[in-house]
Amino acid sequence: MSDAIDRALAEIRFDVDGLVPVIAQQHDTGEVLMVAWMNRDAVRATLAEGRVCYWSRSRKKLWRKGETSGQKQLLRDFRLDCDGDTVLLLVDQTGVACHTGRRNCFFRAWRDDGWTEIAKPLVAPEALYGGKPA
Amino acid sequence: MSDAIDRALAEIRFDVDGLVPVIAQQHDTGEVLMVAWMNRDAVRATLAEGRVCYWSRSRKKLWRKGETSGQKQLLRDFRLDCDGDTVLLLVDQTGVACHTGRRNCFFRAWRDDGWTEIAKPLVAPEALYGGKPA
Repeated sequence: MSDAIDRALAEIRFDVDGLVPVIAQQHDTGEVLMVAWMNRDAVRATLAEGRVCYWSRSRKKLWRKGETSGQKQLLRDFRLDCDGDTVLLLVDQTGVACHTGRRNCFFRAWRDDGWTEIAKPLVAPEALYGGKPA
Repeated sequence: MSDAIDRALAEIRFDVDGLVPVIAQQHDTGEVLMVAWMNRDAVRATLAEGRVCYWSRSRKKLWRKGETSGQKQLLRDFRLDCDGDTVLLLVDQTGVACHTGRRNCFFRAWRDDGWTEIAKPLVAPEALYGGKPA
């Protein structure tokens, strides 16, 4: 398994900070949920566990999506783009992906010369994080 | 128009290099086509022209998608994520998005401990670029 993951890692072009941007897309609806980052250890954890693990740039630690909020992502497919520097994950999202309580993070759209909110929170952020910062 | 675009730009958190990652998604099928980057001028051009313009990090110049290949992207919606550092575009892609001639760039999937090609080129790269490098 470890050898296999080494071969997976060998094709991924991490940036100078050792990170690669990762898109999470809901596998059945095609909804783009969020973008986050992975380092090598996050890729290892994700492929080994079948559950999505990112690298939190703000907290500088591995971030198993949903470890605090419960809103985890099961891995359905792990894809890499033509030049190897972007990952696309097909996932099965439990609950909501966005820390604001919305299903996905892309809830602002530029329409009629202004930013418009096109989705409302489905749950209160406080309910996700118990009053702790996201 | 220019004032409006300044307001659009004000909400986008460009990185230290003045860039923001951008996902292009086919508006009607939900297919994730590619990821590229925009600087402020690329955002301006995209919103002003209704046609997607990226910043080419390799060529260090504005890159109106399709200017060489003809495979342009018409803008259908311009979205921003919760923390303002990733853009999601809904587009109408003419032809193929990937310089390899595939419809989208994410044609490698990690399955059964190996990278598997899950899509074939629909056109020959040489037909897209006339023998010039992509």
